[in-house]
Amino acid sequence: MGEEPPALSVLRWDELPEGPVLVLLDQTRLPAEEVELVCTDVPALVRAIRTLAVRGAPLLGIAGGYGVALAAARGYDVAEAAGLLERARPTAVNLGYGVRRVATAYWAAARKGAEAAEAAAVALAEAQELHREDARASARMAEHGTALLEELLPGRGYQLLTHCNTGALVSGGEGTAFAVALRVHRQGRLRRLWVDETRPLLQGARLTAYEAARGGMAYSLLTDSAAGSLFAAGDVDAVLIGADRIAADGSVANKVGSYPLAVLAKYHHVPFIVVAPTTTVDMETAEGTSIVVEQRSGQEVTEVTSPRSGSTGGGGGMVVAPLGAPVYNPAFDVTPPELITAIVTEEGVISPVTGVGLAELCARSSQVTIS
Amino acid sequence: MGEEPPALSVLRWDELPEGPVLVLLDQTRLPAEEVELVCTDVPALVRAIRTLAVRGAPLLGIAGGYGVALAAARGYDVAEAAGLLERARPTAVNLGYGVRRVATAYWAAARKGAEAAEAAAVALAEAQELHREDARASARMAEHGTALLEELLPGRGYQLLTHCNTGALVSGGEGTAFAVALRVHRQGRLRRLWVDETRPLLQGARLTAYEAARGGMAYSLLTDSAAGSLFAAGDVDAVLIGADRIAADGSVANKVGSYPLAVLAKYHHVPFIVVAPTTTVDMETAEGTSIVVEQRSGQEVTEVTSPRSGSTGGGGGMVVAPLGAPVYNPAFDVTPPELITAIVTEEGVISPVTGVGLAELCARSSQVTIS
Repeated sequence: MGEEPPALSVLRWDELPEGPVLVLLDQTRLPAEEVELVCTDVPALVRAIRTLAVRGAPLLGIAGGYGVALAAARGYDVAEAAGLLERARPTAVNLGYGVRRVATAYWAAARKGAEAAEAAAVALAEAQELHREDARASARMAEHGTALLEELLPGRGYQLLTHCNTGALVSGGEGTAFAVALRVHRQGRLRRLWVDETRPLLQGARLTAYEAARGGMAYSLLTDSAAGSLFAAGDVDAVLIGADRIAADGSVANKVGSYPLAVLAKYHHVPFIVVAPTTTVDMETAEGTSIVVEQRSGQEVTEVTSPRSGSTGGGGGMVVAPLGAPVYNPAFDVTPPELITAIVTEEGVISPVTGVGLAELCARSSQVTIS
Repeated sequence: MGEEPPALSVLRWDELPEGPVLVLLDQTRLPAEEVELVCTDVPALVRAIRTLAVRGAPLLGIAGGYGVALAAARGYDVAEAAGLLERARPTAVNLGYGVRRVATAYWAAARKGAEAAEAAAVALAEAQELHREDARASARMAEHGTALLEELLPGRGYQLLTHCNTGALVSGGEGTAFAVALRVHRQGRLRRLWVDETRPLLQGARLTAYEAARGGMAYSLLTDSAAGSLFAAGDVDAVLIGADRIAADGSVANKVGSYPLAVLAKYHHVPFIVVAPTTTVDMETAEGTSIVVEQRSGQEVTEVTSPRSGSTGGGGGMVVAPLGAPVYNPAFDVTPPELITAIVTEEGVISPVTGVGLAELCARSSQVTIS
């Protein structure tokens, strides 16, 4: 393991002389440059979330939690901060989870008579615990995921296909789906990681390729629609993706482009595996059709933005379509449980994917959290 | 029809004082600017073909034909010119067809004792006839295609999905798949044309959106992988695509991304319709697996090029991936006949798609050409 690169510093809390801050690696600049964003208040963090400087379901939960702690530490209105953060992106359930968990800890302390500074310290401790839990969850998902691959495809090296970015950049640890591929690589069993570029914002090309190269993995980048040729040629042994929200029936909302991969995988009898922490499960959303899918600006499609320019989807990029072209730009799509071979969580694997299986696993997770 | 915009001048033969030239609309500059490329010799035309300044299966056939006529008119070696042109792009069968047809006419005239200028005039006349035939074929494909839609989906307005560019920019007329959508629009029955952006070179965003806007059609642009969400929502009534080569068994090689659309269409019980002239059929290629698929430079994926810079895929664009990222970049994919609802040609419709049906149609086409 001596050859491993240093872990990415994706998000950290820092105590500066002028007050506490949340420092984020600006993911819109990758892979061109590693630039940090320093958030001194919640509106700055909300802006970072909206522009995708910080992104990825589990990391959004951690960022949201630290955001509440930041508001508390700086003496801002915690309820207002929590509301702003929760509404920053509508589809990612982890964001709301992290925000509510830390806010709940803060209010509990305040109700018990803690002073502001004391309650703020409780909030920070809760955010830090969430951060550590997520790192542990990453490691356990990687273990469960590699065990599942071994069971589904015994005694083989794998060609794995992934979409969007699910590595250390989305997590307190090494990520979700990507963490499984990384563990397979460390076991010497990764024949190739196929990296979908993931239009419109190219998280695959910009971030996953960066993490794969950094980890010394055998990988190839491809346009999203070239995946079809790989399936047809028998060059995909399994698909590994993350999740932004999992409904109670096992439907998975994830980056747009996941659903067509699930259909391709079904047609070619290839396992389609979702890797996500139990915090991604939203038991209050009964089924896939009730998931609200964020529609984003058409400029993300009509303009391609340089990683260096530091603004994503906000205009000012290279124009690749006629001015004023109408655009359909959903950020996510929803894959129904019948197309999913398995959901891998830190608590174990659900396969086949059923609402009952999901409920049992989440109950186990809640017990762990409460104990 | 008074509101129709003037027809695009995509390719024309011109007699300048310093000699004949082939003038092309430089498609790499669209939609930013309408710039013409003047080719005075075959190497310039080969460069235009390789950089995709001129592209699209039927138009490549016409360009190849005029290229031979240009070599003849300018006194270059016709056999050498024909060889250069045929090898410019390996997958497009029409290119070779146009080149051989005009070269054959030239050699036939030469064998009959025609002088060089006379044989060159015969070559030019043959290229012009090919050009006119292609325009007529466009019109007939549009008629057959709309009749097929009416039969498959009677009494409805349509939401049609298309991929890559198949309009006036690829043809001596109004195109192939796009010509069908345009005719549906003129009949007042087009509810929406969904335009896949078509990575890596964005022919959908740059060219099809441009033609749709120019034609006053209701359209929306989307990333290739957002098509999945449209199918899932029931918002696609039929898929219309072109073809670069059709094998004798009915397998269709077309722009990468066509095959995943065919799988999606099958899964959602949506008609998947290929529109292409009979010149696209290659009876010497027995089946889909024998089709040679052109692999293009990885820079097309790792760099996005501005339409204004005028160089596509040759580097110098906006870098969106780590330096040196390995890339899998097939230009085409192959859709087997069992995923194709119908092939629409100028001679009629084949449905279901079988080798026998294709052979019959092509025989009819040859009779027409010979008569």
